[in-house]
Amino acid sequence: MRDFDEFTVTEAAVARVRQAPDPRVREISEALVRHLHAFVREVEPSFEEWQQGIEFLTRTGQMCDDKRQEFILLSDTLGVSMLVDAINHRGAEGATETTILGPFYVDAAPEAPLGAKISAGMAGEPLLVTGSIASSDGRPLAGAVIDVWHSDDDGYYDVQHLEEVGGLALRARFRAGEGGRFHFWTIKPKAYPIPHDGPVGRMLAAQGRHPWRPAHVHFMIEAPQHRKLVTHVFVAGDAYLDSDAVFGVKESLIRELEPLPAGVAPDGTTVDRPYFHLYYDFALTPEREARGAA
Amino acid sequence: MRDFDEFTVTEAAVARVRQAPDPRVREISEALVRHLHAFVREVEPSFEEWQQGIEFLTRTGQMCDDKRQEFILLSDTLGVSMLVDAINHRGAEGATETTILGPFYVDAAPEAPLGAKISAGMAGEPLLVTGSIASSDGRPLAGAVIDVWHSDDDGYYDVQHLEEVGGLALRARFRAGEGGRFHFWTIKPKAYPIPHDGPVGRMLAAQGRHPWRPAHVHFMIEAPQHRKLVTHVFVAGDAYLDSDAVFGVKESLIRELEPLPAGVAPDGTTVDRPYFHLYYDFALTPEREARGAA
Repeated sequence: MRDFDEFTVTEAAVARVRQAPDPRVREISEALVRHLHAFVREVEPSFEEWQQGIEFLTRTGQMCDDKRQEFILLSDTLGVSMLVDAINHRGAEGATETTILGPFYVDAAPEAPLGAKISAGMAGEPLLVTGSIASSDGRPLAGAVIDVWHSDDDGYYDVQHLEEVGGLALRARFRAGEGGRFHFWTIKPKAYPIPHDGPVGRMLAAQGRHPWRPAHVHFMIEAPQHRKLVTHVFVAGDAYLDSDAVFGVKESLIRELEPLPAGVAPDGTTVDRPYFHLYYDFALTPEREARGAA
Repeated sequence: MRDFDEFTVTEAAVARVRQAPDPRVREISEALVRHLHAFVREVEPSFEEWQQGIEFLTRTGQMCDDKRQEFILLSDTLGVSMLVDAINHRGAEGATETTILGPFYVDAAPEAPLGAKISAGMAGEPLLVTGSIASSDGRPLAGAVIDVWHSDDDGYYDVQHLEEVGGLALRARFRAGEGGRFHFWTIKPKAYPIPHDGPVGRMLAAQGRHPWRPAHVHFMIEAPQHRKLVTHVFVAGDAYLDSDAVFGVKESLIRELEPLPAGVAPDGTTVDRPYFHLYYDFALTPEREARGAA
């Protein structure tokens, strides 16, 4: 095969990747070639634009380290992460809606007992988070593992300035208690711009877009025989709920933070200043109902 | 805007990038979102496959340094580079056909006088390269700048093992002489696998493809009022002419290497062993005919 023109080169590349022995690799590779070529054929990049594209992808990869995942930011800001999320959660009726993982999840979050304070002395308005984990059929899931993480009073995650914070903070792993219930103390999360000092930030600027996300708490919840739930709970009233830079907001995930006076809190502890209360009941999809569940 | 499903998230992302003030950024961004989402919608990646995609792109970026451009290899092996090349060389009748730049071009190649030997003492079969540079209307282009680079007897480029080679070799920049003619001495290039110890090599293996390119000499030729010509001359008879890993071969770019006996060579020098001769007449497109020329 030789002498390809702008049309036959696509057929040639498709024929070449069809040699893949694994059917899924074959399917993905062939679709990748077709869609990538269709994109190039539509925009007809000049050689200089192609070079800029190569440089953009290179810088995006080189911006990544153990604390920064620029390609996830790219996927998030182009709406790809939410599309993948939606495709993978069809027909999960009765379950809590999902949203993106985001780039700040840390697999090694410290385990903490129910009721723990995870703010490690950071400044901010006190927040009591309570709720429950159940199966979408209503059965409580005591023992469910609940990973939580969120931004601080300045809108940063611990991993964005670990040295300053002195270690992981505003993240922990809990185990749901009796009745699937959980509670913990932290500080109010704040809206924040996604990291925008790299290639993705420059892309957003070129596209006339802001990098902000509305305030939220991340939850990743796992229980036996249930599909892992990855979601956020968003803070009602946030200015960015309708323009989240990563398209992640769902109405069902928004909750008011209830302002409460100093005194005895719902978990029985006594607090000496006013605080907020966030309540959410999560429902997980049983595995037999999950589409293509692993 | 909130509560996107797997269809409305595409509209939302398109609407967002349409805010780009620059019309070309707007056009490219919108097409990127549409084609990327169409790809995702077709292959329906699982969350794990999406993660693998993120990791693949990240590793590809991190494989890049000043001697290695893994994203160019990816573009080349998916047929994208040749597609971009074809789109940018429509209607260049009478001009030498183009092919890809490849990842081994070095901007700072040493200037050399016509007739120079550029093999820096490397082992290999001697090769005399002669030819001419003209406009596609036939007018000779004396003074044209000719960048050449090619692989060594083991199939490597200098930049792949600079320490061993002791500096740049098998590359130089010449200036065409009277009648647009040029000539230089080097060694026969060899077929070689594109660097395949990185993500792109693993992709090729998963796709059941070999990484080989047929033997060739790269040429980049510039002359005033003419479009820059980026091409190769391929060695006739090579085993990989019909399965070039990057889809770069064109019939019009293949030449026989003529075996010649020791004695007085066409350039007047005396050689004490048999050698090969490669001859090619290049024709450049005048700028007024070039489509969207810079």
